[in-house]
Amino acid sequence: MTGGKFITLEGGEGVGKSTQLAALAAALRQRGLSVVTTREPGGTEGAEAIRALLLTGDEARWDARSEALLFAAARGDHVAKLIAPALARGDWVLSDRFVDSTRAYQGGGGGLSDADIMDLHRIGSRGLLPDRTLLLTLAPGAAAERLAARDGGQADRMGAKPADYQARLAARFAELAATEPGRWRTIAADGASSDVTAALMAALADLLP
Amino acid sequence: MTGGKFITLEGGEGVGKSTQLAALAAALRQRGLSVVTTREPGGTEGAEAIRALLLTGDEARWDARSEALLFAAARGDHVAKLIAPALARGDWVLSDRFVDSTRAYQGGGGGLSDADIMDLHRIGSRGLLPDRTLLLTLAPGAAAERLAARDGGQADRMGAKPADYQARLAARFAELAATEPGRWRTIAADGASSDVTAALMAALADLLP
Repeated sequence: MTGGKFITLEGGEGVGKSTQLAALAAALRQRGLSVVTTREPGGTEGAEAIRALLLTGDEARWDARSEALLFAAARGDHVAKLIAPALARGDWVLSDRFVDSTRAYQGGGGGLSDADIMDLHRIGSRGLLPDRTLLLTLAPGAAAERLAARDGGQADRMGAKPADYQARLAARFAELAATEPGRWRTIAADGASSDVTAALMAALADLLP
Repeated sequence: MTGGKFITLEGGEGVGKSTQLAALAAALRQRGLSVVTTREPGGTEGAEAIRALLLTGDEARWDARSEALLFAAARGDHVAKLIAPALARGDWVLSDRFVDSTRAYQGGGGGLSDADIMDLHRIGSRGLLPDRTLLLTLAPGAAAERLAARDGGQADRMGAKPADYQARLAARFAELAATEPGRWRTIAADGASSDVTAALMAALADLLP
């Protein structure tokens, strides 16, 4: 048995992460791999309870510091109870968002330093990093159109941030990808869904058994 | 107007912190001070929501890492929305437990290092420390009797730990007090309630206007 790999999908709202996560899982299973799919914030019972705290209430309910700690607590539960055990069994784990979302969302506009966020990750999740992080990108207009089509313009507390916030977020993800090129791959998500999935699979080629 | 002071009461379960907190607040108000009383985990709407997550469910619901992050998130909210604004107004703030409870409970038996807990406190609450911390102590048997009388032997998730845990906790509080003698005062809580309150007031004499 070959060891499991930990793969994360990152990017702003509306870039198609959840659709691609399902397609990628199917493609990996066709290769005979055992695949666990999950998402953040959430993924375990405890983390989902924290997710409910984070996504409800008004914009000002949590300041950047409390928000980052709550995300780190949820992530610690997710790693301890789901991700680490699955990797130990030799499964592949695909997660829709992980620590890099906190780095982009809370570390970019939010006011916490990246060093603080990585300290929280070290304490909460023993610093676990993915074997590969797939960054999905779209022109800002295209993402906004997809979001509007998806939920009629309604968005939860995390999706309700203004357009310039989304642009800063995309820039922040690009910055993170540039600092760790061995872990990150950036994939344009503008094309047909099956083409995007093929590009994602190609970006995992060196990790496949 | 003289500046407000931040005072915390610490100690194991059943030592009489909440009773003494109320009596101490009354005594300080008699001196003409404006006093805000609060408690942890909790103290603000957001922190109370986190408290509900922490105190319900079975013993194994959260591991030591997630638990410490949740306490730090609740504390960050408590500091930002209640404690810091009250101190800025010149009020005295009395809190039933603060960061030293996390250090004793999660840092003692729980497995996290004190440096990690203080990192969380630095990130979540900008490292705010009390002007004075009052440690209430009782012989272990006396505390157990008070607890049994109070709630018929029922205890929540935090109070349900076994007796040797309570003894380690008391030792851990004593250790913390010894490392920062300027901030801590240790008060035996065995006597009559009014005598204990008088001892607490005496332990604040140098801070009073």
